Amino acid sequence: MPPDDLEALRDALRAFARERDWEQFHSPKNLAMALAGEAGELLAVFQWLTEAESRALPAADLAAARDELADVLLYLVRLGDALGVDLATAARDKLAANAIRYPVAKARGTHRKYTEL
Amino acid sequence: MPPDDLEALRDALRAFARERDWEQFHSPKNLAMALAGEAGELLAVFQWLTEAESRALPAADLAAARDELADVLLYLVRLGDALGVDLATAARDKLAANAIRYPVAKARGTHRKYTEL
Amino acid sequence: MPPDDLEALRDALRAFARERDWEQFHSPKNLAMALAGEAGELLAVFQWLTEAESRALPAADLAAARDELADVLLYLVRLGDALGVDLATAARDKLAANAIRYPVAKARGTHRKYTEL
Amino acid sequence: MPPDDLEALRDALRAFARERDWEQFHSPKNLAMALAGEAGELLAVFQWLTEAESRALPAADLAAARDELADVLLYLVRLGDALGVDLATAARDKLAANAIRYPVAKARGTHRKYTEL
Repeated sequence: MPPDDLEALRDALRAFARERDWEQFHSPKNLAMALAGEAGELLAVFQWLTEAESRALPAADLAAARDELADVLLYLVRLGDALGVDLATAARDKLAANAIRYPVAKARGTHRKYTEL
Repeated sequence: MPPDDLEALRDALRAFARERDWEQFHSPKNLAMALAGEAGELLAVFQWLTEAESRALPAADLAAARDELADVLLYLVRLGDALGVDLATAARDKLAANAIRYPVAKARGTHRKYTEL
Repeated sequence: MPPDDLEALRDALRAFARERDWEQFHSPKNLAMALAGEAGELLAVFQWLTEAESRALPAADLAAARDELADVLLYLVRLGDALGVDLATAARDKLAANAIRYPVAKARGTHRKYTEL
Repeated sequence: MPPDDLEALRDALRAFARERDWEQFHSPKNLAMALAGEAGELLAVFQWLTEAESRALPAADLAAARDELADVLLYLVRLGDALGVDLATAARDKLAANAIRYPVAKARGTHRKYTEL
């Protein structure tokens, strides 16, 4: 895959959908549902594991998690494309906003929300 | 951001968490919950809209969706890092698997699952 | 099932878990994940259907949806029990709050959130 | 609320929606999205807590969880009504199926799925 992963994925998914005449199903509403559905399948991998177990997954669980992560990324990229959102830029912007919301001095070692720091 | 969006994001998030001593909270189990929670917030943007409305979002809804997409990507990249999964490769592998599961001739114009094609 | 569905379900699920020594897995955190995972499976039933199609499900899809609704209810009741929350009372309280947030005169025919009415 | 919680809730929600002319928004597809969105908000209450912490929630977190549980139940009941599914019967049927899938002798003390018992 070319250097720019996300743009390459976007183009590949765009072609994949066009070849199958799937644009008709790929409304942002439907893609958001598909993304959330895959996120739900990801939860199923971890729901009965302790946090410690989740940090050391057996091979079968890791393969299942990897597969779900891929599904989430594919729908995320497809949805970003459908909405005309540049995901890399959006993520960079959010990270910058989070750096302001969660200054190191205040956020260090706590999981409190920025509204409660 | 350097060409390789996902690796650059991974490194930025790794530093962001380390500076705040957040690795202790970032178990794969917890990150999967956070990712799914953001996917749920994404649903809230679209739940009462028609598909047609979702294809032409007003500026405020588009901004909200962009923000949630960014949150999903940030947690997805962080989770991939926590699990040692290369997201770009995983997505490429899944896309290749989908191309076999959904041959154009059979999948064209239908949303049936590959198990029912 | 006795008149009071929710209490009867709560007691049945409590016994089901105790007999299998599953209380150890049924932390509120884990049950919330399981509930959200089932809600994700519910999305999969509807994600590619139009709203009109979702109002007239084929038998197979209706059976799948019914099964997922049951799973969501079972985990919801189990989680309510784990937290000591009376679901019927909580729902009644929320409905009363919604009646105030969404007065008929203002909310009629719109899906706007109460904060935007 | 009368003995039969779920039927009473169903009727109250039916009237609530009719008075506000909300049936137009309450397609099963949309209600499934709303339910999953509330399940996502429930995750947010627990995502950074340990399992032990989730078993002993501070008052503010418990109130937040109770509120989300109520939202999930309201949408679940509304969706069951929209689909013509009797939730209590569906849950009872699922519990009976689970008793066969998870015999005490095999399922005791393990969180393995029935397909792997």
